[in-house]
Amino acid sequence: MPIDNPFYTPEVQGAYELHSLGRFELEEGGVIPDLQLAVATYGELNEAKDNAILIPTWFSGTHQTWDLTYIGEGRALDPSRYFIVVVNQIGNGLSTSPHTAEGEIAMAGFPHVRIGDDVRAQEQLLRETFGIERLALVVGGSMGAQQTWEWAVRFPDKVQRAAMIAGTAQNTPHDFLFTQTLMDAITSDPGWNGGDYASPADVGEGLRRHADIWAVVGLSTEFWRSEFWRGIELPDVTWDTFEEFRDRFLRPTFAAMDPNALLSMAWKWQRGDVARHTGGDLAAALGRITATTFVLPIDEDMFFPPRDCAREQELVPGSELRVLHSVAGHFGLFGFEESYLAELDGHLSELLGTEV
Amino acid sequence: MPIDNPFYTPEVQGAYELHSLGRFELEEGGVIPDLQLAVATYGELNEAKDNAILIPTWFSGTHQTWDLTYIGEGRALDPSRYFIVVVNQIGNGLSTSPHTAEGEIAMAGFPHVRIGDDVRAQEQLLRETFGIERLALVVGGSMGAQQTWEWAVRFPDKVQRAAMIAGTAQNTPHDFLFTQTLMDAITSDPGWNGGDYASPADVGEGLRRHADIWAVVGLSTEFWRSEFWRGIELPDVTWDTFEEFRDRFLRPTFAAMDPNALLSMAWKWQRGDVARHTGGDLAAALGRITATTFVLPIDEDMFFPPRDCAREQELVPGSELRVLHSVAGHFGLFGFEESYLAELDGHLSELLGTEV
Repeated sequence: MPIDNPFYTPEVQGAYELHSLGRFELEEGGVIPDLQLAVATYGELNEAKDNAILIPTWFSGTHQTWDLTYIGEGRALDPSRYFIVVVNQIGNGLSTSPHTAEGEIAMAGFPHVRIGDDVRAQEQLLRETFGIERLALVVGGSMGAQQTWEWAVRFPDKVQRAAMIAGTAQNTPHDFLFTQTLMDAITSDPGWNGGDYASPADVGEGLRRHADIWAVVGLSTEFWRSEFWRGIELPDVTWDTFEEFRDRFLRPTFAAMDPNALLSMAWKWQRGDVARHTGGDLAAALGRITATTFVLPIDEDMFFPPRDCAREQELVPGSELRVLHSVAGHFGLFGFEESYLAELDGHLSELLGTEV
Repeated sequence: MPIDNPFYTPEVQGAYELHSLGRFELEEGGVIPDLQLAVATYGELNEAKDNAILIPTWFSGTHQTWDLTYIGEGRALDPSRYFIVVVNQIGNGLSTSPHTAEGEIAMAGFPHVRIGDDVRAQEQLLRETFGIERLALVVGGSMGAQQTWEWAVRFPDKVQRAAMIAGTAQNTPHDFLFTQTLMDAITSDPGWNGGDYASPADVGEGLRRHADIWAVVGLSTEFWRSEFWRGIELPDVTWDTFEEFRDRFLRPTFAAMDPNALLSMAWKWQRGDVARHTGGDLAAALGRITATTFVLPIDEDMFFPPRDCAREQELVPGSELRVLHSVAGHFGLFGFEESYLAELDGHLSELLGTEV
């Protein structure tokens, strides 16, 4: 029986629609009998259907951060000019996920999903639901960048422009190991119980340890040294010490999430690799890309460091490396800093302004 | 009853002697009824007693790495010229530690120990046992650097030269949080049982998770990307993949260690802070230092980054920043690279050659 988790509702996450794709066969051999994608759209598709922007989501994220932080009139991602489609990734809690699935694929029975599955599902959704055959831009951060890379390699004719923020085309060994520590933090909690629990609260200690590892690697040494957290504000909660910021911001951020959903996404993240299309040859895979491509790592990112992203960018014909600046490291993606958002908007506006 | 752990023996660690300091009162209020320091010495103390070098040990380490990797004729730390005293830190498994203690302070009853306790104990040892009143050099890495900083601030008249490798005078919030994840990996194992276990194997899963977090933060993204591990050799074991290197090198490295010993050292690490001498004023504390001081961070260190070390170095009169280069990050301390060892030897030789 699905778990009724109030965190994964429009009341908490903002409006979205569920689109059914029917039976969906996965690359690893599993099947989702009726794949539902949770989709939020902003703006209108024009008659030529050439003003569509696709945004896939990151690990543990939903469309909400994009809605509240990145999309808006006058911004690069401007709904008065573009039809912006944010698709929640499979397993993220809103699209079909372990805790919403029924029957054999419920909970621990949820099949392995790959980045390529998300991208195929998104392509089907855009074509069948909206009649979109080409995208003006695909942009995503972190696991959203993994999906953006996959789009640009798998469907080069359908992607006019691509912007990969803080994420790689081929997941690194370091990130595989990092992600494993996040997963082990959850699965080592006896309350996880092999994936069979009644609510995320049963796995509270595991989710707490998972959040605490994010505090170390997801942010940055400079974030903590500079006490950047003093400037972060939430309604109804304050913090005077770094421990309080961890306890009152980072831990609650993850506490409501579904443990199996996090594990499903983490498994997928560990195996993101566009070179699966070319027998392991990364250069050949990236050489396929025809989109105008900006690769946008964050300078303080501790696990997608700019040099790893630069190595991939150099393999993409005509692409550019644009390093973003955020003291929050990978979590700069949350858009804590106006300077970071202005910088990103500048790059995306320039990219959207390029002729293709 | 003490745990008989074969890992903490001269057969495994190399020769050392236990020196009793008698009753030892700790800064946090606890008492060790008969503090034993495990001490390894190399070379001879000269008549003037002015050729002594002190080396305190790092987290989870013993004198062994110094013996095998850093000390040798023709090296900077040359036992034919210097009397080199490596003192195993309290709680490291060789000096008095939770699993070797008896009575009230055994196991989980082991009292909190601070960096300052180690330094006071070392000062007493050197004075009472060897009649050493001044040190030609104190040098240490990581928690050994924390102790070196403490020496230079607490006993400025007794330290002629100081070299702090990959460690800070005042522990950072980031490192506090990082260390906590290491501790939680252990204490979350039901086998830890509140500190009451029969052998480290009972806490095997916790020690494994602890090692896996080290794999992510203790090494570096570049270590994993470059597959540096292919060049690391051990007798009787090989690895062909990065997962095998983790499983066969990193996990066994920690599997034999005593969980309570690691927790005792981690608690101490979290709270290293020379500003305790000056009411929280770090600049005032570091301004006390009269030793000729080289601060030696490692360029790829993910949790003692050079800029954090540089900020402290700038507060030490007449000191120098010498950045070391190791793709192994913090674990560069193990001396995997001849280039790193040559670089460090060069700096230490130059430091030892300075007139004071």
